[in-house]
Amino acid sequence: MRIVKAVITAASRKQRSLPLQTLTDSDGTDKSLLAILAEETFRAGIEEVCVVVCPGDEDAYASAAGAYANRLTFVQQKEPLGYGHAVYCAQDFCEGQPFLHLVGDHLYVSGAEAGCAQQLVELAGAQGCAVSAVQASHESLLPLYGCVGGRRVRNAPGLYEVDTILEKPTPTDAEQWLVVSGLRAGHYLCFFGMHVLTPTVMGILERCVAEARGERSVTLSEALAELAHRERYLAMETVGRRYDVGVRYGLLTAQLALALNGLDREVVLSRILELLARRELARETA
Amino acid sequence: MRIVKAVITAASRKQRSLPLQTLTDSDGTDKSLLAILAEETFRAGIEEVCVVVCPGDEDAYASAAGAYANRLTFVQQKEPLGYGHAVYCAQDFCEGQPFLHLVGDHLYVSGAEAGCAQQLVELAGAQGCAVSAVQASHESLLPLYGCVGGRRVRNAPGLYEVDTILEKPTPTDAEQWLVVSGLRAGHYLCFFGMHVLTPTVMGILERCVAEARGERSVTLSEALAELAHRERYLAMETVGRRYDVGVRYGLLTAQLALALNGLDREVVLSRILELLARRELARETA
Repeated sequence: MRIVKAVITAASRKQRSLPLQTLTDSDGTDKSLLAILAEETFRAGIEEVCVVVCPGDEDAYASAAGAYANRLTFVQQKEPLGYGHAVYCAQDFCEGQPFLHLVGDHLYVSGAEAGCAQQLVELAGAQGCAVSAVQASHESLLPLYGCVGGRRVRNAPGLYEVDTILEKPTPTDAEQWLVVSGLRAGHYLCFFGMHVLTPTVMGILERCVAEARGERSVTLSEALAELAHRERYLAMETVGRRYDVGVRYGLLTAQLALALNGLDREVVLSRILELLARRELARETA
Repeated sequence: MRIVKAVITAASRKQRSLPLQTLTDSDGTDKSLLAILAEETFRAGIEEVCVVVCPGDEDAYASAAGAYANRLTFVQQKEPLGYGHAVYCAQDFCEGQPFLHLVGDHLYVSGAEAGCAQQLVELAGAQGCAVSAVQASHESLLPLYGCVGGRRVRNAPGLYEVDTILEKPTPTDAEQWLVVSGLRAGHYLCFFGMHVLTPTVMGILERCVAEARGERSVTLSEALAELAHRERYLAMETVGRRYDVGVRYGLLTAQLALALNGLDREVVLSRILELLARRELARETA
């Protein structure tokens, strides 16, 4: 299976300004989060990127994308009908092909040579099926994410056959349905904000959107829960971390993660120490 | 002297996106840099704020200002004729009154109860003259700032009578003209990006702009150098620090300074330690 298309969702009314924020990438150059995400997909071999936006945000996003603007296709989500609906807005763009999907408010920092998206696309290409990136996360984070339950794939560390998906489960539901053997106690496989999805998912979303009739939000998790019953569907622990920039201090944490993993690690560390020393000094002399 | 007007310059073609960046303020709430700067002026008793912008940036800035948008007046700098020219664009707004001036690409973190702008406005009001905020800075930073030379005011720690201004001086020129007794060796009084200026400055700028005829940039420093010969003009070391968000890792450093001086100091410190631990772990297992 060859994956050459990517869909980035950035239409959430609350988080539309996040992809426009400037970060200093691990190579020391300033880029918008949108440009960093576009590069993440290109490094994974993606040729065409669709960005699902709130109507009217196209110009600001094109400007934030800089040199990549002409490689992006903008599609509007005209009404806020949920995350699953936002993905479905890219149906025409996907033309019945499998696609890489990233959320526009996360930053991905790989702990390996290959980027997180590249790890995922290579695995999905080789296995010929949908794969969701997941991260083992403490149960305190369950209210933030979709979570998967399933079985380890033999002789493939960090790979799971998905059988259950629950969106933002309670700890009780997670304990009942999502325990995966081999994880640390109290940890579950939570979505990483990155998936390779098959045309089947678009078909399921089409039905969900039609059934919702604009009266309720459509989640991506409900479509993926059904996918698990219809196709082989894997979850992969990528080597790396995702940072949700939409939470409090999320942008700062993401920027620190980039900088502390990048070329300028020493510069940033000494900056932190200097700031700590300075504040203590101000306290002494206050 | 009563100061109720403020002028924020944000028209530099290179740095026009900086005031739009989101920071988490020391109280833990997310704000644009522009909103944080507006609050800095309001806390100093300012009633009307003028923002000098690049033509076309008004809407994005108004949106970034959020609840403060209706208290801001936008004035265009139609051509990039220098920082002094940008300040001069606010002449009509100032109506011959003294004004507080801040640059739009700096963040100010006070080390005292009163904000930096408040410290400056109170002193200028009491002294009835122009006052520039300064920070003793190492000579390695001279290429970035305007610098002042002068004499200490007796019995007023951190206060100086200005007699010389040089824009981005060489170390040789600084050593010849700008040594101020009592500072650490190799340190000079550099501008902080914050001033209270008198109507005389607008008059001098008017002449500088006319003489330049659009053929060269007009700096603020040239006008302030002349001011020092015409009026009493003070420099004040405010209790606090300025962070230039336009330099590499400037936004990160500014955000860290805010967070490490704010309510969420412990949260951010533990986040830093967690990131450091995590990277070392990734290295061990790589």
